[in-house]
Amino acid sequence: MISREKFRAISASEFFYRNREIAGFDNPVRATYTVIRELVENSLDSAETHKILPNVYVRLRQDNNFISIKVVDNGSGVPREFISSAFGKVLFGSKYTIRQTRGTFGLGGKMAILYGQITTNSPVLITTGTGGPEYFRVEMMIDVEKNEPNIRVFKPMKNDNGWHGTQIEFRFDGDYSRAKPKIVEYFKETATILPYAQLTFIDPDGVYYVFNHVTEMLPSPPTEVFPHPHGVDTELLTRLIKETHATTLAEFVSRHFHRVGVRISEKFLREHHFKTFTNPKDLPPEDLNRLADAMRKYNGFLPPDASCLSPIGPELMEQGIRKEFHPEMVVVEQRRPSAYGGHPFIVEAAIAFGGGVPTPPPGEVLLHRYANKIPLLYDSHSDVSMKVIRSIKWWRYKIDVEKDPVAFFIHLCSTKIPYKTVGKEYLADRPEIEYEIEWALKTCARKMKRGIAGKERVEWAKKKAIVLEKYLPKIAQFSSDIIGQKDVPDVTRLFRREDMSDSGEHEEA
Amino acid sequence: MISREKFRAISASEFFYRNREIAGFDNPVRATYTVIRELVENSLDSAETHKILPNVYVRLRQDNNFISIKVVDNGSGVPREFISSAFGKVLFGSKYTIRQTRGTFGLGGKMAILYGQITTNSPVLITTGTGGPEYFRVEMMIDVEKNEPNIRVFKPMKNDNGWHGTQIEFRFDGDYSRAKPKIVEYFKETATILPYAQLTFIDPDGVYYVFNHVTEMLPSPPTEVFPHPHGVDTELLTRLIKETHATTLAEFVSRHFHRVGVRISEKFLREHHFKTFTNPKDLPPEDLNRLADAMRKYNGFLPPDASCLSPIGPELMEQGIRKEFHPEMVVVEQRRPSAYGGHPFIVEAAIAFGGGVPTPPPGEVLLHRYANKIPLLYDSHSDVSMKVIRSIKWWRYKIDVEKDPVAFFIHLCSTKIPYKTVGKEYLADRPEIEYEIEWALKTCARKMKRGIAGKERVEWAKKKAIVLEKYLPKIAQFSSDIIGQKDVPDVTRLFRREDMSDSGEHEEA
Repeated sequence: MISREKFRAISASEFFYRNREIAGFDNPVRATYTVIRELVENSLDSAETHKILPNVYVRLRQDNNFISIKVVDNGSGVPREFISSAFGKVLFGSKYTIRQTRGTFGLGGKMAILYGQITTNSPVLITTGTGGPEYFRVEMMIDVEKNEPNIRVFKPMKNDNGWHGTQIEFRFDGDYSRAKPKIVEYFKETATILPYAQLTFIDPDGVYYVFNHVTEMLPSPPTEVFPHPHGVDTELLTRLIKETHATTLAEFVSRHFHRVGVRISEKFLREHHFKTFTNPKDLPPEDLNRLADAMRKYNGFLPPDASCLSPIGPELMEQGIRKEFHPEMVVVEQRRPSAYGGHPFIVEAAIAFGGGVPTPPPGEVLLHRYANKIPLLYDSHSDVSMKVIRSIKWWRYKIDVEKDPVAFFIHLCSTKIPYKTVGKEYLADRPEIEYEIEWALKTCARKMKRGIAGKERVEWAKKKAIVLEKYLPKIAQFSSDIIGQKDVPDVTRLFRREDMSDSGEHEEA
Repeated sequence: MISREKFRAISASEFFYRNREIAGFDNPVRATYTVIRELVENSLDSAETHKILPNVYVRLRQDNNFISIKVVDNGSGVPREFISSAFGKVLFGSKYTIRQTRGTFGLGGKMAILYGQITTNSPVLITTGTGGPEYFRVEMMIDVEKNEPNIRVFKPMKNDNGWHGTQIEFRFDGDYSRAKPKIVEYFKETATILPYAQLTFIDPDGVYYVFNHVTEMLPSPPTEVFPHPHGVDTELLTRLIKETHATTLAEFVSRHFHRVGVRISEKFLREHHFKTFTNPKDLPPEDLNRLADAMRKYNGFLPPDASCLSPIGPELMEQGIRKEFHPEMVVVEQRRPSAYGGHPFIVEAAIAFGGGVPTPPPGEVLLHRYANKIPLLYDSHSDVSMKVIRSIKWWRYKIDVEKDPVAFFIHLCSTKIPYKTVGKEYLADRPEIEYEIEWALKTCARKMKRGIAGKERVEWAKKKAIVLEKYLPKIAQFSSDIIGQKDVPDVTRLFRREDMSDSGEHEEA
């Protein structure tokens, strides 16, 4: 007989505590960025989902060897009965319905709190109210081995002003000075994609970064939807059958799936030789497989609609880019909704040119990526958008992506972002998404080449010429004076207007 | 009052079911590879940890629309009381001690089973024995919502032969034809890094891939160790203090940490102004922080030793490479143990040249990566090893990595592999690891340039010359005959021996 293995179960907290690098808590530098980001994103979600214009305040402060963070939002707040679990239990959250949200599921915010706890051994302080007669002050730690909150203080307070929102405060082992560039970039990018959000960030040196909102227009919040039949698996079918009150297959399929009406349901079942009157609870296992398979492959279902999505929209996207990057010109394109594996998605793209847009560093491309209104700042070379940009023949659009002052913006929104990591760094490669990104960019490029864009570029060249025209003679005069030369050279012939306009362009189909 | 969020807890099974792409189950192609890999790795671990020469058999079969897989190993088997959880509960496993293993923790194998279940709605069949008087046949499914096994059959069988091992069988939605190249590569790489393992793979077309072991030498298995003081955090300290029987701080520190004796413990505590006689359970929270911080930063602790590691060793590494790649020559280097953040690690590297090693495709480098004896086949461009290879000035060693028939092999073993993803694709960047990889490779390169390697290269050139010498005159004769030319050109002056030897080399420091 051989020696025995020892076995044990670990809690979800414990698993992520041991593997915190997969959630973006590799080291104090990266963790500083991730803590801020996870908390800000929860704040934004809790406001936007309830049609509140988000106002988020973040303050960092050096506290001996640690950083203390305070995040205050004006979101919906957390109801009393959920407070302890919502902040003290990994894999407990509000993001389990099918709807576009920033988070995956109840992980990021808790990981931030947990990281603070394991590095500083101090509790988290939470103040939250939902606008009711009371709000609550709570102090807790997480019991990692049990994955349970360990409440130390739970104090109801009188809420005379109907306040709603959440304030979180804790300490963690961070390294702000090295994380600073990414953090500032994160806020700037967030302000770009959310021109309606008011963001305030105070860093440990006392520097204020204020990003004012420039509009009060809020995109309509995403609604909850049923799962689309193209995304089912037998696990989902089994669950729905267990819970359904439908007594026939036809009713079952039309009642629990997105965009399936009674007529389509019956047609689909007949075509696949299912009896429409079978009680779903009587379906034998092999038929369950066949049903799941048929639902995934049937072409007669309507595509998912985009009501569960909340894109930014061309107008806001342009406002955001203008506000943060001050380009000479912006072209924006929103694609129509599409779907992959039953998940609806929309791609929005923009190209900004000139003005505040710098020329890229050698060999690089200025690409700004967003997914469900989150900026993605890491691993851009692995991202599908970069792949698409590298594959487009930009000379056709008279753009040199490595030398012109041109920046690309891609926003993907979906009920399911195909992240490759829990840390939400970059998108996996899906052909459907790749296709949409490609056409969004090409459409932008075409808009830029002709029409308004073409004119704007001419304007831009002219403006530059005017500046030159004004100063060059003075420089010539000045230079001549210095070297004591009497006859100033004629510089006017250097900028004859007719050489500056665009030469004829040839459009492709 | 604003609308309320809905909140819910989800189980660990449910979390990974929803986010299965982060564990490598993105789509049927990738899942086919991941299923095989997770099961094979569990089998290898269960044999090696108990000093058993691994013998793993994998058979795939097309089963209507699905693939059925059967994996049989000769490992230690799972004791009766743990069978249901070990195969039916996510985050239950044997890999929670500090010791080098392939898996992270009780996730991969279960994810493979879970993926099979949700795509085919069929149970998993397990046969396992630990060499005792009975072995067991079990049929189960996983209750995803509860993260609990759902046992359908549990049958004890008479084990007259003292059999130990595990056999797993289930069906899943896969795509073998597109996954095939990676799967075959996976087996070949596994056979390279484990020349003592017997591997048999039968694909759905009935093709046998047999990788015979060429040695019965098994590296000594890793032992369990205490955590090293450089890797502690307050969470760990709190737990240990709760459980300890030590009554003084000095005893506590010397008893629960790796390579800390009583003398070092006392010296460390005194230098940091802790009273050595304090009962650890009386330590106030702020001192706990200070203790954790001091332990992480103190330079007086001994570095972690490598008894918890199980490197391959130069001899086996060379055997494995020779067996699978048939190169003209191989140089191998094993570095001494080092550590990062309290985790000991060892880097082993090899460079193989000529013979069966092909020249790399344009712009690429032949890099074979392994971590804790697992081949890493995806995302090599993001890996720290590739970064190091790209940074070394290979011309100094007279190697052209993009044109010569040269292949690099890097094996990292550690109690904690810094994976960036749950799917175990590539390593995060740690300066300590980067340094060791760099010097392992440079040492290999130097060995190759001079000494044995230099001679071998000369030998190789000579051998080529001999072949040329033999056939070139015949070719010349033959060519001349064809075109009807009488006087055959003199080819012997084309290979004068003295031009072929290495010219003088200049070694760097």
